[in-house]
Amino acid sequence: MSRDDLTALILSAKKAAGLSWQEIADGIGMSPVWLHSAATGMNAFPEDKARAFVALLDLPDAAVAALTESPLKVWSQAVPTDPCVYRLYEIVGVYGPTIKAMINEKFGNGIMSAIDFSMEVDREANPKGDRVRLTISGKYLAYSNW
Amino acid sequence: MSRDDLTALILSAKKAAGLSWQEIADGIGMSPVWLHSAATGMNAFPEDKARAFVALLDLPDAAVAALTESPLKVWSQAVPTDPCVYRLYEIVGVYGPTIKAMINEKFGNGIMSAIDFSMEVDREANPKGDRVRLTISGKYLAYSNW
Amino acid sequence: MSRDDLTALILSAKKAAGLSWQEIADGIGMSPVWLHSAATGMNAFPEDKARAFVALLDLPDAAVAALTESPLKVWSQAVPTDPCVYRLYEIVGVYGPTIKAMINEKFGNGIMSAIDFSMEVDREANPKGDRVRLTISGKYLAYSNW
Amino acid sequence: MSRDDLTALILSAKKAAGLSWQEIADGIGMSPVWLHSAATGMNAFPEDKARAFVALLDLPDAAVAALTESPLKVWSQAVPTDPCVYRLYEIVGVYGPTIKAMINEKFGNGIMSAIDFSMEVDREANPKGDRVRLTISGKYLAYSNW
Amino acid sequence: MSRDDLTALILSAKKAAGLSWQEIADGIGMSPVWLHSAATGMNAFPEDKARAFVALLDLPDAAVAALTESPLKVWSQAVPTDPCVYRLYEIVGVYGPTIKAMINEKFGNGIMSAIDFSMEVDREANPKGDRVRLTISGKYLAYSNW
Amino acid sequence: MSRDDLTALILSAKKAAGLSWQEIADGIGMSPVWLHSAATGMNAFPEDKARAFVALLDLPDAAVAALTESPLKVWSQAVPTDPCVYRLYEIVGVYGPTIKAMINEKFGNGIMSAIDFSMEVDREANPKGDRVRLTISGKYLAYSNW
Amino acid sequence: MSRDDLTALILSAKKAAGLSWQEIADGIGMSPVWLHSAATGMNAFPEDKARAFVALLDLPDAAVAALTESPLKVWSQAVPTDPCVYRLYEIVGVYGPTIKAMINEKFGNGIMSAIDFSMEVDREANPKGDRVRLTISGKYLAYSNW
Amino acid sequence: MSRDDLTALILSAKKAAGLSWQEIADGIGMSPVWLHSAATGMNAFPEDKARAFVALLDLPDAAVAALTESPLKVWSQAVPTDPCVYRLYEIVGVYGPTIKAMINEKFGNGIMSAIDFSMEVDREANPKGDRVRLTISGKYLAYSNW
Amino acid sequence: MSRDDLTALILSAKKAAGLSWQEIADGIGMSPVWLHSAATGMNAFPEDKARAFVALLDLPDAAVAALTESPLKVWSQAVPTDPCVYRLYEIVGVYGPTIKAMINEKFGNGIMSAIDFSMEVDREANPKGDRVRLTISGKYLAYSNW
Amino acid sequence: MSRDDLTALILSAKKAAGLSWQEIADGIGMSPVWLHSAATGMNAFPEDKARAFVALLDLPDAAVAALTESPLKVWSQAVPTDPCVYRLYEIVGVYGPTIKAMINEKFGNGIMSAIDFSMEVDREANPKGDRVRLTISGKYLAYSNW
Repeated sequence: MSRDDLTALILSAKKAAGLSWQEIADGIGMSPVWLHSAATGMNAFPEDKARAFVALLDLPDAAVAALTESPLKVWSQAVPTDPCVYRLYEIVGVYGPTIKAMINEKFGNGIMSAIDFSMEVDREANPKGDRVRLTISGKYLAYSNW
Repeated sequence: MSRDDLTALILSAKKAAGLSWQEIADGIGMSPVWLHSAATGMNAFPEDKARAFVALLDLPDAAVAALTESPLKVWSQAVPTDPCVYRLYEIVGVYGPTIKAMINEKFGNGIMSAIDFSMEVDREANPKGDRVRLTISGKYLAYSNW
Repeated sequence: MSRDDLTALILSAKKAAGLSWQEIADGIGMSPVWLHSAATGMNAFPEDKARAFVALLDLPDAAVAALTESPLKVWSQAVPTDPCVYRLYEIVGVYGPTIKAMINEKFGNGIMSAIDFSMEVDREANPKGDRVRLTISGKYLAYSNW
Repeated sequence: MSRDDLTALILSAKKAAGLSWQEIADGIGMSPVWLHSAATGMNAFPEDKARAFVALLDLPDAAVAALTESPLKVWSQAVPTDPCVYRLYEIVGVYGPTIKAMINEKFGNGIMSAIDFSMEVDREANPKGDRVRLTISGKYLAYSNW
Repeated sequence: MSRDDLTALILSAKKAAGLSWQEIADGIGMSPVWLHSAATGMNAFPEDKARAFVALLDLPDAAVAALTESPLKVWSQAVPTDPCVYRLYEIVGVYGPTIKAMINEKFGNGIMSAIDFSMEVDREANPKGDRVRLTISGKYLAYSNW
Repeated sequence: MSRDDLTALILSAKKAAGLSWQEIADGIGMSPVWLHSAATGMNAFPEDKARAFVALLDLPDAAVAALTESPLKVWSQAVPTDPCVYRLYEIVGVYGPTIKAMINEKFGNGIMSAIDFSMEVDREANPKGDRVRLTISGKYLAYSNW
Repeated sequence: MSRDDLTALILSAKKAAGLSWQEIADGIGMSPVWLHSAATGMNAFPEDKARAFVALLDLPDAAVAALTESPLKVWSQAVPTDPCVYRLYEIVGVYGPTIKAMINEKFGNGIMSAIDFSMEVDREANPKGDRVRLTISGKYLAYSNW
Repeated sequence: MSRDDLTALILSAKKAAGLSWQEIADGIGMSPVWLHSAATGMNAFPEDKARAFVALLDLPDAAVAALTESPLKVWSQAVPTDPCVYRLYEIVGVYGPTIKAMINEKFGNGIMSAIDFSMEVDREANPKGDRVRLTISGKYLAYSNW
Repeated sequence: MSRDDLTALILSAKKAAGLSWQEIADGIGMSPVWLHSAATGMNAFPEDKARAFVALLDLPDAAVAALTESPLKVWSQAVPTDPCVYRLYEIVGVYGPTIKAMINEKFGNGIMSAIDFSMEVDREANPKGDRVRLTISGKYLAYSNW
Repeated sequence: MSRDDLTALILSAKKAAGLSWQEIADGIGMSPVWLHSAATGMNAFPEDKARAFVALLDLPDAAVAALTESPLKVWSQAVPTDPCVYRLYEIVGVYGPTIKAMINEKFGNGIMSAIDFSMEVDREANPKGDRVRLTISGKYLAYSNW
């Protein structure tokens, strides 16, 4: 069973179980952003979480090994076409140099880690129309001098 | 004076004035993320803010007209090479489909706007090393059916 | 059944039923442009419309779930090769900056939404040769300042 | 004087004259979409319109020859980055095959011309927020068989 | 049966029948260039020609519907690699601006249509080595002003 | 003086002389397609033709050396954007494999040369609208076996 | 049987027969470079050579027709990644303009044909380490003037 | 003086001196292929050869330092457009895998070096038309195992 | 069995055997970096090592022939997306010209071979967090002059 | 003075001073790899090192501010063409997935940092020809789970 087949199996088991990503995440004690990315092959499960996930969705035991492997993270569109994903790409294009300038001003010569990293996606009520709030937290990493 | 020349003039005036982006932003009553993007040609100033900015940095009056024009937002690297900006691109590549799934689950069939949008960059104290926190808020836009 | 298989099934059911997109659209109470894009996986059906569509074309009930999911909108040709589609791309290349200038002049600093959006394709009788008329309507979105 | 220099001169003369594209277009008896594209080097002026335009903006006489030449229409971004222009590109990506299907259904085996073509950009009042309306009209061209 | 499968079937039926493209073209009363492009999915057959073609090559009746559909014209190599096709691409690269200048001089501000269009490929006897002659005829289309 | 400067000088001398490409071509005894391509740096003049051309347009003598050099033929757009040039590219995309099949059928395993090559662009009168006729003649080159 | 299947069959028959490309080439009276390229679908066999090849490797008779067809020469990597092939690409990048200058100096305004062409690959004994010697011979083709 | 300026100066000094690359190469005791590539910035001169070259063409002494530096070898077209250079690229595309197979058969698991490398370009008399002969010699390098 | 199938079989046999790459490498007397690259099709096994490897993992005998063939080394992402691999790409982008300058300074006009080459990956204990150490050793190759 | 102008000034001052990168690095107490990358705009100097560097090469005082700014790290060739740099790119292509597998085996689910990072380039004496040794050390960063 390839990783893509496993992802398809997970999506279909989720639909059959009638669970949301939030509910599955709560069930195994992880956040829904992390859970979704790990379930779809963009992160590796720790073994206990893999076992809990497999139990919750009634997946075959063999899935544990696949879920705990470090995936090769691949995306094939250098510029994403889906409008929801493209808007994120656009934010990086428009505000990327600004974020760099802010990090330089507040921290010094370094970057925000995309590895020691977490993210939340929330719904923000607003009378003019509710808003999506992304909260991203990454460790500041200073460039080394040597 | 081209927009690029104006940006160079702004950066040099800022250095001469010894002000941070935060201080300039406070001085004209805008957030530093917005201020930096507008100062470097990725957003347009409302006229009163342009006047305040020109006054604060002692720029020529002719800059007001240039600062209030809607810029053509252009970036030349489809995949950014600067490590600080690339990490943001990587987050979109790895977590883009996850963010879409979260929005679909919490809101329905739609996207987060990158136009009715704001962002903050903060320093988050942390004993294991301080963290960069990006808080992004964009209006939810539902796809129309017709 | 993958989404591509479902699209193939829809095209073949449409041919068997001898219905045009206009007739199917009338039958379920949507416009033909929207109907075609949703049927071919570029938009999501509201549940009642999915049920009406499935009934009209005698598709399997399982199609309802697939038709109501938010699709990941993907196109693989950055520059389309089909002459009919390329002409539209060419119009964006030639007139894109002009449309931006017109929006700036009539509305201010903002854009036309491609999400809160509708389109019609009509036949316009003309003695020198009939014409295709595209009528596109998108909500004006002003850039935020913050 | 290169065509780019001429465009810069036109933009600066327009600003000095305090005229909108609509007013200039009215002044020379053309539509504003066409006028803007011709003024910025994406269309060629007929000689009488070039003379009227040069007179209205008080441009040098030598500009007439440049304005009446068939320009080589060049854009350097296969995928445009400006959000206002990108949304148009996205519409072509999402709805291009749908527009083709509609043309096939209403006309037969052919395309909409991008040469025998006109476009209008209008402001549509709407209580939920005004809308941009693009009306595009292109001659239907049938593929030849031979 | 996909369009690619149909193309394979046509090529194999042609081989079995021992007919050249010229002979098949003569048999159904079309030119060989058009016939080949339509048989390989780059043009749509009118219904009577599709029936004649199906009869001549003894193809299944179901092929008529597929052959009369407007194909989505797709090529995957922006720069073709086959030497025979590349030479044509090279001619466009070297002589494209020259052809534009000739059209501008002989006709005015417009283009040669690639839709209302025909082409012949002939063998030209020549004592220094026979030559390939391409004769391309496309309707002149003037750019509209509006 | 760079080759680009020379081209600009030639275009301006041509305008000053009030000559068409056809007239200049007649004046030096070459065809207008060849003349235009050589004048704009895509072909090299034989020395006598270079002298005649320089004399006709009253160019500086130093131009003879530049005009007779083998130019490095460079085009920067893999896919041309100008509509007039793009239509030619489209013809190669749609009909390239067909032209190859015709050459294979009429000549054997080989190609049409783009070096031992000539082209004419003519105006073809037609009651339904005049047509552009391109006549391309290239020597057939058989692939060697060894 | 597709051309790729045929290539796989040839490679496996060659392995089973325990023959080198040199031995097969000698067996059918062609050079090994040509033989390998024709066997792997980059050249077409004359019919007698195809028959000899099929007999030598005990391939099915149907292979003769496939081997004698003019293949569409396709490579999918514009820049090859295999180190052995990349070094050849690098030589073209570094020495391409030099080879052009040498041809211009020794022959005039023209090119080396890649069609009327042959190549040999030899092992050159050398005390500092043996060397690969490529000998490439292509007919000089002069650009036409017309 | 940039390296590009130096190249322009060399080309102009060569023209003024009325020398061919062959004559300059003979004058400094190097081969013409190497000399041309070094003169145009694709190879570095040993100091004595740089001095001889500077003396022969009467270049400024400062050129010696520039000529002996290891240049960063850059070419901007991944696929070259000049027909003379493209034919070499095409040979790599068509025959690259064949050359690899020949090297594997004659030497083993390794490649031809493009660094310990030399090339000659010769004119080969031939009654059917003279031919260009490229002789390329590169050291065989075996892949290491470790 | 294709090379990709063989790789899958190897990965699954490794998992079944419960061996690390280090253990397999020790078992056949090669380094783990080399072993992994050869096992996954990026290097060719010498025959004795192939036999030892096949025996150790209990693979079919037919695998020996496949493992000893010179593979065509192909990677499909010009810019890798996996964060672990991208960081290596980034190091080449940031430090590539620096490494060239160091080699020029310490050795002269030449390069580091990627063929006569070895690499080790080690874990370096460090109180601030352990470190990955890559030790790369490639033979210096001087550019030839001729 | 732009950053590129500063780099040119540094290179010229270094040549005038007759110092190697090693000597300059020793003079300011940094390693030569880091020094070269910072001097050419790929790293930022701490202020004391910038002052030492400016003093050593007798650069203008204004250079200190430019040298201490966080540079936007940009490279324009996704695939580098210079042979010395390309070999490094090739190593990433061939061994990238292997390095990932080694890190996974020795450390777990994480990567090697390219920010908390250092590198040395050394000359390794070897009787078969000296070797370049790159020693790269980057902090192991584990992916977070949250």
